[in-house]
Amino acid sequence: MSLKLFFAPGACSFVPHAALELAGATFEPVIVKLHKGEQRSPEYLALNPRGQVPVLVDGADVVTQIPAIALHLDALFPQAGLLPSGGMARTRALQMLMWMNNTVHPTFTHVFMPQKFTSDEAAQKAVKEHAVQAYRGLLEDMEVMARAAAPWLAGAQPGVLDAYALTLLRWGGMAGVDPATLPATWDLAQRFAGLPAVARAVERERLQLNVYKPA
Amino acid sequence: MSLKLFFAPGACSFVPHAALELAGATFEPVIVKLHKGEQRSPEYLALNPRGQVPVLVDGADVVTQIPAIALHLDALFPQAGLLPSGGMARTRALQMLMWMNNTVHPTFTHVFMPQKFTSDEAAQKAVKEHAVQAYRGLLEDMEVMARAAAPWLAGAQPGVLDAYALTLLRWGGMAGVDPATLPATWDLAQRFAGLPAVARAVERERLQLNVYKPA
Repeated sequence: MSLKLFFAPGACSFVPHAALELAGATFEPVIVKLHKGEQRSPEYLALNPRGQVPVLVDGADVVTQIPAIALHLDALFPQAGLLPSGGMARTRALQMLMWMNNTVHPTFTHVFMPQKFTSDEAAQKAVKEHAVQAYRGLLEDMEVMARAAAPWLAGAQPGVLDAYALTLLRWGGMAGVDPATLPATWDLAQRFAGLPAVARAVERERLQLNVYKPA
Repeated sequence: MSLKLFFAPGACSFVPHAALELAGATFEPVIVKLHKGEQRSPEYLALNPRGQVPVLVDGADVVTQIPAIALHLDALFPQAGLLPSGGMARTRALQMLMWMNNTVHPTFTHVFMPQKFTSDEAAQKAVKEHAVQAYRGLLEDMEVMARAAAPWLAGAQPGVLDAYALTLLRWGGMAGVDPATLPATWDLAQRFAGLPAVARAVERERLQLNVYKPA
């Protein structure tokens, strides 16, 4: 087994990045510099025609899509507990993972890249303003989940949900949400980032957890 | 085990609806009439505070999110082959499922409910127009996948990917995409709808596969 992860610092690729470290996997981390447009290079597009991170290369196979990579890593490293192993605990964790991936994550995309949804500049502004409010509401929903963490979002073991929560909370800072207003999520993110395995990914990405700047 | 599925005819809840029938599951189908606002009734919101279909009730537990329900049913009915059982075949199928769920499906939401993304009417119009074009492109990507179906999207057995493809293609009709321009997907959808198990779900929802009307 040879594993390679293409990631961009601060992007959603932190989820598999942290998961690989939590699993104690041997893998080659490859930085994709989004600000230099490396995701649109012919080499990268050959790997992932959508030009997105993350990409996991497992031997001769290329895997994209965060929940699919998470489930792939969970199957490769069952002892790591990246997700609960079965039953309703697993289903609940998958439900939260899907919500983060198909609802919270794309709402931030509307904040960060409104140009993906319309070329009209006035409409972009309207979409972004709407998304900032919606994103705050979704982080408040996540805060309720973080309050119930015991001590991690999926239960006894830290895993992909905590990595995603950290990422979505960080992005909140860019959407004008002060992490101090979401104390359970902020506590969870700090505890997660402080785990020795996760700290390696945080350090490699040079992640600052709190990127909020008051207006 | 007692299973109950809350679904709305023609909505994405067709995916678990078809999956339950394919698995030969005993379940109680419950129609949620979206045009009557039943998804916002106090009883329904108590079940799913997001007011969305589908909801799967398994005994005392409530499960939402299509991929989470699909994985839950796959774990309950492993013999049904709703997804490949393991290895890279499973990962590839999950990757396609996530793409349908987090990219194709929400692009249609921008076509169908642009008011979810901005209250500004001019911006809604701009978002919708952009999404119609994007949706067509995504269905063309899906057509490439349907061309490679052997004979189903995940391989030898029909499952959740085919159910999602049928739904997304049907929605294409409402976005002005003639299914005749996507012959491999159209063939797949017709073959899938013709399976005796799936036909029960199609009949219960009174689904018309081709809802395209030329302008």
